[in-house]
Amino acid sequence: MGKISIVGIGPGNISDMTPKARRAIETAEVIAGYNTYIKLISELIGGKKIIRTAMLQEVERCQMTIDEARAGKSVALISSGDAGIYGMAGLVIDMILDLPESERPQFEVIAGISAVNAAASILGAPLMHDFAVISLSDLLTDWELIKRRVECAAAGDFVIALYNPKSKKRVTNILEVQEILLRYRKKNTPVGIVTNAGRLEETKIISTLENFTAEEINMFSLVLIGNSQTYVKAGFMITPRGYSRG
Amino acid sequence: MGKISIVGIGPGNISDMTPKARRAIETAEVIAGYNTYIKLISELIGGKKIIRTAMLQEVERCQMTIDEARAGKSVALISSGDAGIYGMAGLVIDMILDLPESERPQFEVIAGISAVNAAASILGAPLMHDFAVISLSDLLTDWELIKRRVECAAAGDFVIALYNPKSKKRVTNILEVQEILLRYRKKNTPVGIVTNAGRLEETKIISTLENFTAEEINMFSLVLIGNSQTYVKAGFMITPRGYSRG
Repeated sequence: MGKISIVGIGPGNISDMTPKARRAIETAEVIAGYNTYIKLISELIGGKKIIRTAMLQEVERCQMTIDEARAGKSVALISSGDAGIYGMAGLVIDMILDLPESERPQFEVIAGISAVNAAASILGAPLMHDFAVISLSDLLTDWELIKRRVECAAAGDFVIALYNPKSKKRVTNILEVQEILLRYRKKNTPVGIVTNAGRLEETKIISTLENFTAEEINMFSLVLIGNSQTYVKAGFMITPRGYSRG
Repeated sequence: MGKISIVGIGPGNISDMTPKARRAIETAEVIAGYNTYIKLISELIGGKKIIRTAMLQEVERCQMTIDEARAGKSVALISSGDAGIYGMAGLVIDMILDLPESERPQFEVIAGISAVNAAASILGAPLMHDFAVISLSDLLTDWELIKRRVECAAAGDFVIALYNPKSKKRVTNILEVQEILLRYRKKNTPVGIVTNAGRLEETKIISTLENFTAEEINMFSLVLIGNSQTYVKAGFMITPRGYSRG
């Protein structure tokens, strides 16, 4: 029986990938993942067998991963960021555990730098206090539930990190979220937008809740909304923790 | 003028530290941080100058870091986990930016694997859906605000990650949180407790909202409370994302 490593490769830059993740990829016989992520780590893959699948073929990809492991191979199933945050870990583990115990491949989850960690490091220090992480993708989640979560996070004065803020087919969700948040927070609440964090094309915008626009955001963006205490200083976004400066 | 790298060293195991973090530590002339964290990376420090300070001396530590950098040294200021999540990034950046522009050392924040990422990878896949991160330390935050955030996170059906769930002086906060959550969630909601994630002494407990006890938790624990959909399967905690298994 082979083994499955569910690997978070980080934002996409080898210098942000943990040694544990790198070793799992280098020692695997088979690599499985989205085409986009496979490309990001191509220098580590060499001549290995690759299971490439497109977006929305998650179940097929996990099944192929499990089949390879059951045939004796060691497989690295990769997600960008952290495989444990909106990644592939849940689905593949569930599918592995559906098998009778004697037929289950071994597995491990290897944590990675997720988009929220990467974006925060680029913006300054927006996550010094409690925060909520919400995906705006309504592909697998009811949009009403997502909006309710935005309301609850706003009511709790959480810093809010928005994953999947926009896609080609989904452009207005972020504007509805902006409207909801403006009912709870000041117009000048800092908003940070990091696109392609940790990659060559990385960009950073610091704006406000009132002024940021959907045009500044794409499917590779992470949006961070400050809490009531977050401020901008010399181009950096900081959420204070309350240390006494005496 | 020297330079300050604000480095998240990850949970404490070199194999979970990014190459970027490692390089910043290895190339720094001075290392600053809590004694406990300095010890975790002692093999990387060699004969470097060390600014060791105890807990609650954050302002002093940042000032000493800035003084060294202004004297021309490159300094790595380390936090465990991610320096950008409840770490040292906010305070030191604020203090740097208080200086006149010509007197500011350069700085960068290097993201790391935070406790929530590490704990999730050990428990299975609890963070496949929206989650809230809350610290139960009321040292610098009003306890009423913390409880309000717990209520809001519960109302929004977020998976909830609790940092600093308990300390020697603060043992009842986690029990109050348990009481609040029991008003919103089923008694058998899965609860995962990971202590010393990524270190030799790592332990993992999977319990329920009704049954977990404060005795199972200490200051090195991260507590993860499932949402209404989270389930336990063969000892792993999984929050489903809703993929169609056809």
